[in-house]
Amino acid sequence: MKLAVQEAYRGIRNLEGGPFGAVVVRAGEVVASGHNCVVSGNDPTAHAEIVAIRKAGASLGKYDLSECTLYTTCEPCPMCRSAIHWARIRNVVYGCTRFDAAAIGFDDELLYRILAGERERGDYTERNEARDECLELFREFESMENRVRY
Amino acid sequence: MKLAVQEAYRGIRNLEGGPFGAVVVRAGEVVASGHNCVVSGNDPTAHAEIVAIRKAGASLGKYDLSECTLYTTCEPCPMCRSAIHWARIRNVVYGCTRFDAAAIGFDDELLYRILAGERERGDYTERNEARDECLELFREFESMENRVRY
Repeated sequence: MKLAVQEAYRGIRNLEGGPFGAVVVRAGEVVASGHNCVVSGNDPTAHAEIVAIRKAGASLGKYDLSECTLYTTCEPCPMCRSAIHWARIRNVVYGCTRFDAAAIGFDDELLYRILAGERERGDYTERNEARDECLELFREFESMENRVRY
Repeated sequence: MKLAVQEAYRGIRNLEGGPFGAVVVRAGEVVASGHNCVVSGNDPTAHAEIVAIRKAGASLGKYDLSECTLYTTCEPCPMCRSAIHWARIRNVVYGCTRFDAAAIGFDDELLYRILAGERERGDYTERNEARDECLELFREFESMENRVRY
């Protein structure tokens, strides 16, 4: 966790984004670390956990990180929790809670409500189009013998 | 949407990952496109929407994509929905539904339940540690005059 905190300090001192750091560990060894670089990277997905997971996958040469533990300075937002799920990481250690983060202006409450289906449509629209063409794509995929399902 | 479907076909034919493609559009012009490359990229976060959003941010040189519309061949999973939220994208058009995806083995139901707090702990653990050090990090961030809050 000390490393994750150091990562976060590095990020904020370079004005890269919010105060968040993360480290991926396997069998007691650091595999990758990262800090929030949404601003410096012009990348809205570049939360610390996502950055660390991407680096870990590249470093280990695999997309299944089920042997790894993620340390993060703050409870993961739904995007990062989902990434942890898809990466099959089963152990997470976090420092601050999401309520601590909300108290300094990083609030993911609305996002939780959107994902729970309590979407305040407001200025957000989502619509369905061309489902048949996309189902045809699914059928082609299903017909491939050597498809990779991930 | 045609472009998103083409992207997806390209991805599955090269065995890069699941049958998903996405395109980011601004003012009628394509800004970026991407397909699932979780397998080829050893990147568990590389869903089509994430890839397209990352490319769009890099291409436009900004992390606020509120002027953009996202086209995707399938209803976004919670990771991608969250990324759409953080990117401030307000218009989403999708082809297949998440139930169509579940029918071919891409099921995000468990993830929705985890995010709703109905986590089946099972082999997953999450614990809190070193909150004080992480709160100190937050305080340092709050004390910075030129901090970037994202």
